[in-house]
Amino acid sequence: MMTATYMSPLSFAQALLSPRAVAIVGASGDTRKNTARPLRFLRKHGYTGAIYPINAARAEILGERAYPSLEQLPGPVDHVFIMIPGDAVTDLLPQCARAGARVVTIYSDGFGEAGPQGLARQQALARRARELGLRILGPNSIGLADLHSGCILSVNAAFEADALLPGGLALVSQSGSMMGSLISRAAARGFGFSKSVSVGNESDITVGEVVDALVDDPDSQVILLFLETLRSAPAMARALERARAAGKPVIAYKLGRSEQGDALAQSHTGAMAGNDVAVDAFLKAHGVMRVQYLETLFEMAPLAACYARTPGVAGRADGRARVAVITTTGGGAATVVDNLGLHGMVAVAPPADFVRQIAEQGLSIRETPVIDLTLAASSAQYKMLLEALLRADWCDAVLSVVGSSAQFHPGLAVQPLLEAAKPADKPLAVFLAPEAQESLALLQQGGIAAFRTPESCADALSVFFSPVHAGPPLGCEVAWPAGLPTQGMLNEQEAGVLFRGLGVPVVQGTLLSPGGLNHGFAYPVVAKVCSRELAHKTEMGAVRVGIGDDQALERAMAEMLAAVRRRAPSAQVDGVLVQPMEGRLIEVMLGYRHDPQVGPTVLLGAGGIAAELAPDYSLRLAPVSLEEARTMIDEVRQTRLVRGFRGLPLGDCEALARAIVDFSHLASLTGVQVEEAEINPLFVRADGVIAVDGLVRLA
Amino acid sequence: MMTATYMSPLSFAQALLSPRAVAIVGASGDTRKNTARPLRFLRKHGYTGAIYPINAARAEILGERAYPSLEQLPGPVDHVFIMIPGDAVTDLLPQCARAGARVVTIYSDGFGEAGPQGLARQQALARRARELGLRILGPNSIGLADLHSGCILSVNAAFEADALLPGGLALVSQSGSMMGSLISRAAARGFGFSKSVSVGNESDITVGEVVDALVDDPDSQVILLFLETLRSAPAMARALERARAAGKPVIAYKLGRSEQGDALAQSHTGAMAGNDVAVDAFLKAHGVMRVQYLETLFEMAPLAACYARTPGVAGRADGRARVAVITTTGGGAATVVDNLGLHGMVAVAPPADFVRQIAEQGLSIRETPVIDLTLAASSAQYKMLLEALLRADWCDAVLSVVGSSAQFHPGLAVQPLLEAAKPADKPLAVFLAPEAQESLALLQQGGIAAFRTPESCADALSVFFSPVHAGPPLGCEVAWPAGLPTQGMLNEQEAGVLFRGLGVPVVQGTLLSPGGLNHGFAYPVVAKVCSRELAHKTEMGAVRVGIGDDQALERAMAEMLAAVRRRAPSAQVDGVLVQPMEGRLIEVMLGYRHDPQVGPTVLLGAGGIAAELAPDYSLRLAPVSLEEARTMIDEVRQTRLVRGFRGLPLGDCEALARAIVDFSHLASLTGVQVEEAEINPLFVRADGVIAVDGLVRLA
Repeated sequence: MMTATYMSPLSFAQALLSPRAVAIVGASGDTRKNTARPLRFLRKHGYTGAIYPINAARAEILGERAYPSLEQLPGPVDHVFIMIPGDAVTDLLPQCARAGARVVTIYSDGFGEAGPQGLARQQALARRARELGLRILGPNSIGLADLHSGCILSVNAAFEADALLPGGLALVSQSGSMMGSLISRAAARGFGFSKSVSVGNESDITVGEVVDALVDDPDSQVILLFLETLRSAPAMARALERARAAGKPVIAYKLGRSEQGDALAQSHTGAMAGNDVAVDAFLKAHGVMRVQYLETLFEMAPLAACYARTPGVAGRADGRARVAVITTTGGGAATVVDNLGLHGMVAVAPPADFVRQIAEQGLSIRETPVIDLTLAASSAQYKMLLEALLRADWCDAVLSVVGSSAQFHPGLAVQPLLEAAKPADKPLAVFLAPEAQESLALLQQGGIAAFRTPESCADALSVFFSPVHAGPPLGCEVAWPAGLPTQGMLNEQEAGVLFRGLGVPVVQGTLLSPGGLNHGFAYPVVAKVCSRELAHKTEMGAVRVGIGDDQALERAMAEMLAAVRRRAPSAQVDGVLVQPMEGRLIEVMLGYRHDPQVGPTVLLGAGGIAAELAPDYSLRLAPVSLEEARTMIDEVRQTRLVRGFRGLPLGDCEALARAIVDFSHLASLTGVQVEEAEINPLFVRADGVIAVDGLVRLA
Repeated sequence: MMTATYMSPLSFAQALLSPRAVAIVGASGDTRKNTARPLRFLRKHGYTGAIYPINAARAEILGERAYPSLEQLPGPVDHVFIMIPGDAVTDLLPQCARAGARVVTIYSDGFGEAGPQGLARQQALARRARELGLRILGPNSIGLADLHSGCILSVNAAFEADALLPGGLALVSQSGSMMGSLISRAAARGFGFSKSVSVGNESDITVGEVVDALVDDPDSQVILLFLETLRSAPAMARALERARAAGKPVIAYKLGRSEQGDALAQSHTGAMAGNDVAVDAFLKAHGVMRVQYLETLFEMAPLAACYARTPGVAGRADGRARVAVITTTGGGAATVVDNLGLHGMVAVAPPADFVRQIAEQGLSIRETPVIDLTLAASSAQYKMLLEALLRADWCDAVLSVVGSSAQFHPGLAVQPLLEAAKPADKPLAVFLAPEAQESLALLQQGGIAAFRTPESCADALSVFFSPVHAGPPLGCEVAWPAGLPTQGMLNEQEAGVLFRGLGVPVVQGTLLSPGGLNHGFAYPVVAKVCSRELAHKTEMGAVRVGIGDDQALERAMAEMLAAVRRRAPSAQVDGVLVQPMEGRLIEVMLGYRHDPQVGPTVLLGAGGIAAELAPDYSLRLAPVSLEEARTMIDEVRQTRLVRGFRGLPLGDCEALARAIVDFSHLASLTGVQVEEAEINPLFVRADGVIAVDGLVRLA
């Protein structure tokens, strides 16, 4: 048995992405089998490191020397790729460690994706790896590839291609097969990749850690993510912030926009129940550009680079990016503009002085939202106008829609686009109306974002201009109020104490014992049964409003308590909470949840029953800044009723924003973890806000 | 001068689509010019009819004999294609008629698309053509093409292609350049065309008439429409009904889903202000499949044929089509399923007895919404399962998602799909996850609907299962009530008489003169100033509710009349309308509009101010059937509040449906045309509905 001495140890990132020597366990000599692929791919694509196929049954595989086990290798390895049956994998780990490996990638399945038994096997695997100081990619990973060095440790058929196109895109995928599909689609368009990594079940190495490694990879310029879920938010958050700091844009396509899609993406990877909205907030908070259409993922890469250079361009306050449109096909341009409109963007007409300035250069254009040059312009004039648009301050982006010339005269059609001086801070997107592979390729080679469909073109521009969430403010810590329970449910009065302690205005209240009437408020009042075990008070008959005098209060208390005894006989009742009646313009709700995937989140939602008919809410990672809280208010349609809609009275939106911030500091409490909390309703008034009901569930 | 005698006259449709002899006016010999194209295209693509290039300045063009004018042709023509400056076109029409032409296609611009002067020129052109018995395609038409005969009367660059692919798709486009773009995109995928027609400004021949001609064209199996607007609804309606009867499916892509897109599509074609929602209702009422993504327009053609054969499959009552999913790429399938979910469709798991039945055939599958055969199945097994799914009654459609094999083993990957017995009544859609041109082409050749993107795949299935609106019921005629004004605005009392006459329950009311108090209702009552000149009574201070006694009524009348005198001094006041107070569960609004594009439409909308924050309405062509009215109710979110939502009291939805039907018969009134009418609000109660305010504007 040899020991790993002659090679200096690699960093984790290097061992993962750029190993100097690899072993392939379970390599087959039967070329029809998937397990024959890695060795073939490594040779085909010119990997120059040492390759050790391991197969106990054969001394030779595909004409190369094979080794009976990891114990008999002539030298150490950095990375082992395992393709043997799942039940034999864990036992192999000590040999991997002894062979010098730092990372083991496991293709074998039968783990977390295969039910409880598989999950137990996966946990044992990860535990063993930790004990041995090994890092695991997978199991159930289709492998990973370095397209620059030809180190293809993967069974993915995409690498059957005769030549791979190395380039600056790095791909991390939670779906193995989609890794190959995306590479093949991108390659057909001339997009080259640096690395591509299938993370499989993420038993150890998660997407976040791979992203982190890619931040340090000089070959990787833009990082693409195909996501089904999010498994380790803290690691991901750290990596995304490092990517942001390094100026490496991250673009994500994530399944789960629909309920079934979300459930399915979760189930087929064996992950926990999904929550796409929270993950979406997480991605936005960390500067990830999430696209809606599959091919936008790579098509927008050239735009993404611009996004990273000029974060100021993104996130215009009103969310209505102004796009200047220049075209040789009116119908083609109108098709993209229609899609821009669906995303809330506007095609903007050039102002009169711009039109004059262009006329002085000998080109006549009109003040219309689409500048149609079908008949008028020479190539030089097109270039001149394009450069002027890219410099103009009345538009945020330039869209060029090219007609039939893109099909029949590719060079001519894209020449002005390639030649124009392009400032680094103004995005240029191109849509080619006809089938025009060659023009697409020329634009791609020129680093210009070109789109195959009007839909992906609008998607990309929309993503580019989507508001980037401000990250959570620097952590402050808030002590848990003395005297409050530290686990289970809080009753309404206790919840009020907690919220008040954070700064949220809460309606006053007096907790009466049965028979007591001394609440100290002017009538009319509200009375509610106070119990940590009554979540739905109204349905229980445990709330009365508009109580006019002592007599009515006495009767209401008796009736409510009787109703609760009847309907929830086991509920422990802490008394009856009496509160003054409060007025309001509208009512909203605040929600807080420690999301199992992304951690603390805060939600502002429309109040009342109508809000249940159509989603109307805004969600962020908690805590939020005052600025972000203001944006949340703008995102909830119902708040328009107190923001100057049709002459209705104005509500105190600043007080609402402060309440959101204060409430979101449930995330800053020390010692006790709040699982869920809700203020429902929060009354919004002309002068301030006030919480009139709430609940809190602790871990 | 010769006369057109030796040819028997062709029908309009034949002269339009399949002329035996054509003249090209303004044909150029300079191959760099667009105007040189038609002659070149005709020769290149093998048109065998007579071709007469007309050019006063040259005796020879591109090696062919040219004629100085239409007056000197050796024989008659069926169709003239004109490319001379716009101001000379009208004067040429008499010569066209004398040359025997039945149809003149005009490429020249400077007409309706170029402002008021151009519009006047266009009207003169159309008038002259009518006088001469000529039909005009255009002006501003890029021309038309018969891809079977090679009769290419077009300057569209798409016909530069060395070989055109004849096939069964017919395309009618309101955008000239997009006609070429769509043909090029479709051709790259192996879709062949029969005819393609750019209608230009539709000064005479409209899209509807072209569709009508295509219904009779044996080469055209599926009709595709690229629409920016709708110019002649009656002709279009007739043609679409003929297409439906002939079993020729019609698929449309229409601009205008966004407000700016709508405006732009209208402006650039010189048409009137658009109304996409009404046109959408029109298309649905006439069985047109409207797709959302550009390429779905041709990609779904094979599915459309199935749709035409089995209208019963379409429009499941709950709108949730059940899709069985079979795949070799879990991630790829999940990507489509996520998109299906966005369209309200569900991937459905096979039931236990189906799983058993498949197991008996030697294939083990699971009861999951995606049947993943990645490792398990042979080609024969795949085919067996696919056939079983296509026969199964627990799913409405089958989706096959193919992985990397589609890229590297096209024949193998699509073989079971091609070979499987496919019943005519169950749609099969295929998505290929990787780049896989060859597989796409093989599937297309096999008549199977294959999609390049997960988005268009879901779009197509969604369109397939979109509810088809029931057409308006057979026309009944309703006489205009005696005594009501027949033009201008009706006041509220008169509107009430009209609505009541149609059968809509309307609140009782007594019109009092100032000073009068004898209304005959129990207090409390509502009082409103009655005037045909007050559209916004509430804002004018002209409505009071909850009036408790005579004294209060007297005061209210005086104050309201004073307010109206002050704010609308010129308004003629007909009195004060007093009505009893009515109760309600929810309030909705009914709208009626004689849409300038599609004619009578009826709308059910949510009531109250919240409805203005988010669109919540359903629109149909009027009149509607009771069945269709019920569907409209289901489409308005707010009505869920009276349809069993969270235990709330049920409203009388049957009475609401009857009220919609009755109100929609505003379209059936004879002698007087209602331009606009509104009942707002209509109260929905547990026992019936009642209109409490309304207005009517006549033509």
